[in-house]
Amino acid sequence: MAEKKMVEAITSMEEDFAQWYTDVVKKAELIDYTSVKGCMVIKPAGYAIWELIQQQLDARFKETGVQNVYLPMFIPESLLQKEKDHVEGFAPEVAWVTHGGLQPLQERLCVRPTSETLFCDFYKNDIHSYRDLPKVYNQWCSVVRWEKETRPFMRSREFLWQEGHTAHATAQEAEERTVQMLNVYADFCEEVLAIPVIKGQKTEKEKFAGAVATYTIEALMHDGKALQSGTSHNFGDGFARAFEIQYADRDNTLKHVHQTSWGMSTRLIGAIIMVHGDNEGLVMPPRVAPIQVCIVPIQQKKEGVLDKAYELRDRLKENFRVKVDDTEKTPGFKFAEAEMRGYPIRVEVGPKDIEAGKCVICRRDTREKLEVSLDRLEEKVGELMETIQREMLERARTHRDAHTYEARDFEEFQRIFSEKTGFVKAMWCGDQACEDLIKEKMSVTSRCMPFAQEHLADTCVCCGRPAKKMVYWGKAY
Amino acid sequence: MAEKKMVEAITSMEEDFAQWYTDVVKKAELIDYTSVKGCMVIKPAGYAIWELIQQQLDARFKETGVQNVYLPMFIPESLLQKEKDHVEGFAPEVAWVTHGGLQPLQERLCVRPTSETLFCDFYKNDIHSYRDLPKVYNQWCSVVRWEKETRPFMRSREFLWQEGHTAHATAQEAEERTVQMLNVYADFCEEVLAIPVIKGQKTEKEKFAGAVATYTIEALMHDGKALQSGTSHNFGDGFARAFEIQYADRDNTLKHVHQTSWGMSTRLIGAIIMVHGDNEGLVMPPRVAPIQVCIVPIQQKKEGVLDKAYELRDRLKENFRVKVDDTEKTPGFKFAEAEMRGYPIRVEVGPKDIEAGKCVICRRDTREKLEVSLDRLEEKVGELMETIQREMLERARTHRDAHTYEARDFEEFQRIFSEKTGFVKAMWCGDQACEDLIKEKMSVTSRCMPFAQEHLADTCVCCGRPAKKMVYWGKAY
Repeated sequence: MAEKKMVEAITSMEEDFAQWYTDVVKKAELIDYTSVKGCMVIKPAGYAIWELIQQQLDARFKETGVQNVYLPMFIPESLLQKEKDHVEGFAPEVAWVTHGGLQPLQERLCVRPTSETLFCDFYKNDIHSYRDLPKVYNQWCSVVRWEKETRPFMRSREFLWQEGHTAHATAQEAEERTVQMLNVYADFCEEVLAIPVIKGQKTEKEKFAGAVATYTIEALMHDGKALQSGTSHNFGDGFARAFEIQYADRDNTLKHVHQTSWGMSTRLIGAIIMVHGDNEGLVMPPRVAPIQVCIVPIQQKKEGVLDKAYELRDRLKENFRVKVDDTEKTPGFKFAEAEMRGYPIRVEVGPKDIEAGKCVICRRDTREKLEVSLDRLEEKVGELMETIQREMLERARTHRDAHTYEARDFEEFQRIFSEKTGFVKAMWCGDQACEDLIKEKMSVTSRCMPFAQEHLADTCVCCGRPAKKMVYWGKAY
Repeated sequence: MAEKKMVEAITSMEEDFAQWYTDVVKKAELIDYTSVKGCMVIKPAGYAIWELIQQQLDARFKETGVQNVYLPMFIPESLLQKEKDHVEGFAPEVAWVTHGGLQPLQERLCVRPTSETLFCDFYKNDIHSYRDLPKVYNQWCSVVRWEKETRPFMRSREFLWQEGHTAHATAQEAEERTVQMLNVYADFCEEVLAIPVIKGQKTEKEKFAGAVATYTIEALMHDGKALQSGTSHNFGDGFARAFEIQYADRDNTLKHVHQTSWGMSTRLIGAIIMVHGDNEGLVMPPRVAPIQVCIVPIQQKKEGVLDKAYELRDRLKENFRVKVDDTEKTPGFKFAEAEMRGYPIRVEVGPKDIEAGKCVICRRDTREKLEVSLDRLEEKVGELMETIQREMLERARTHRDAHTYEARDFEEFQRIFSEKTGFVKAMWCGDQACEDLIKEKMSVTSRCMPFAQEHLADTCVCCGRPAKKMVYWGKAY
């Protein structure tokens, strides 16, 4: 009964995917809305996911030589304006501080929407010689973009992210770092979040304001929409010229540095929900699940049951993040709650199980149940964690592949997008006019020119002129 | 020569303590100044200290049941104004956002100087029943206070901190949590930062805007000035009444919650510098030293020297944070740099050492050198880490005790403060007029009424009326 009530409270994803998403973030207690329009509270269950993302991503960064720093959250207006394309891209959506204490400021400050300009200002003073290079810095912080339409984790006026900013002696080194970090992102998404991604380059139209090249990883959500999940930008020496960041090379001549930046955000939590979630709620990949095992005692008032549940917890907690749900709710309610919160494994243990020296394990992802001898619990849970992590990635990849189509001419292209939502691979001539037309006609955008190019046809799917690149197209979040 | 040059570059602390401090933060590469007035860049060597503080403090929080969350950085003006004392305390020093994108905002937003009001707004919606209590939440974030005079780590317009905010069913539980977190702070300072602190209560005059009681830990810097290093506030139900945060108790009546908040900040890095530093630079306590062991190869171009240095690093890195300084600088320069950066242990290893199967270990804190057999290196480094950590705390305590005085009458009180800088313990009647007079005459403030009260005299050191409390007085940062 209680179980039924909880399940009924979520809209099914087939009925209304957007509402299903909102229901899950609220019911799984990931976020709450606030009096601050367009901003959210990240609650303990949501923030704990972010902490696990941070820890594992940060460790991967550090393995490649990244050092963390912290720069101010404010950017003086004159600094933001130094790089022309960049300011055009961001000025319309920043928040402005005009007063400090009771006084108006002489120069207004924006709250950082991203920190390229601050890093340039810093590097200008910090880099003098080739010995000072490379600089491979990153910061974990919050940024602000004054969005009109917001949605938890996906788009909010303030969000948490990391932004890496590097400076290199040569163009080649900058390009290598740009690609290296994209690969770190892709591996992280696949290995930790169980989300398969397409790696590729953004078109000129879609690239970052001020970048020479923007690389992206694109994931496909359960509703067939695309999510840009991480980006890595090569700036060439454009910012360095605008900010006069020069170093004395070995030959004693002054040269401009070459720069990159790359970022991932709390958006990844949105991706986890929309790739893995189902009509029972959240489904967490084990490696970022704040609770990996939830033990539910059955008939917990009977002597020995709670003690056994705690004993199992103590045994499991050496290797797993585990809790006992010892609240006064009914087991049915606890099951539904554990499913809503997406705990990868639920362990049920009652008086009869204890007598028989076994327990029941229920996988969240497949909802399969199996009986396990209590002696072998740690071993079985360990195996299942690996299995679940692997199979979640496989299922997400199967779903994505089943929703990836190919179009060879405009008619086919239009027909697919009128019937389906997913990735469509199609050839492109490289002309922005075709991109604009496709967006106008079908409300889809170029997601990326994948590194793994295929030759689907000789001609552009839009104009019929010779094709230069295969592009992934889709509706994007 | 190179060594001499570096050492000469720091002002000695006896000559000018403030300049010595600035020299250390710059030369040890902890911070840099920016184009953003009153804000600083925390560079890798500085941020790595903060990361170690965060990790260890966060682990201690979580042991007491704290959960991390993230709330917006903006506070609508109407929300800030809900608690009268609080807004009076903070409104004069906040930064105001008045425009979002190209539009003026309907209501201006301040950048959080602290988040009591946001947590209240959140708790109001999140707390309904006694079952929802307690809430023991914390966030790691940056806050902004529009200070006029700034100094790296000690006082800047933006700084990093954690702020815990809790809600409880009863006044007693709130008081217990307030004291519990103060004890967490005190233990952390002593055990991790090797900084001894005085635990006590702030006077009415010095307490936090909106608090019923503010507890503090006060440390003594090398120049004899006091540093408030962490505070924990009991708000009673004042905020709960202003924000109408009520819960249905077991007896079904509505009751207001009782709240606390507590915070520590990047100021702790300033404390580490000013408690442990010397005229050679920074001296890091091992537990928060980003590099604990720096291996300096001697005659590194000779065959086998660098290999041996890397071999020792690989052996040590299993248990310690270690690096090899394999740059092209002279050993003398490397020694000076290692001292400036405060690495607890320097290991010197050259061709003769290798031949003899030994190396030289130099302690940063005492600058003592000792020869160690290479076979026993891990063991010896491990022992020394413990010894250094313990002795640094002991020395800091000895210094503090030697600069803690007692005054029984006003003449003695004035004489001590005219001759010395340190803590002065003296009795107080409890009247703010005496506090004001003391501040006016001697430019010192009450630091706290220590939990460990002593009876030094029957009468107030200022007015001669009956004394109520012993107070620590001092000049504060």
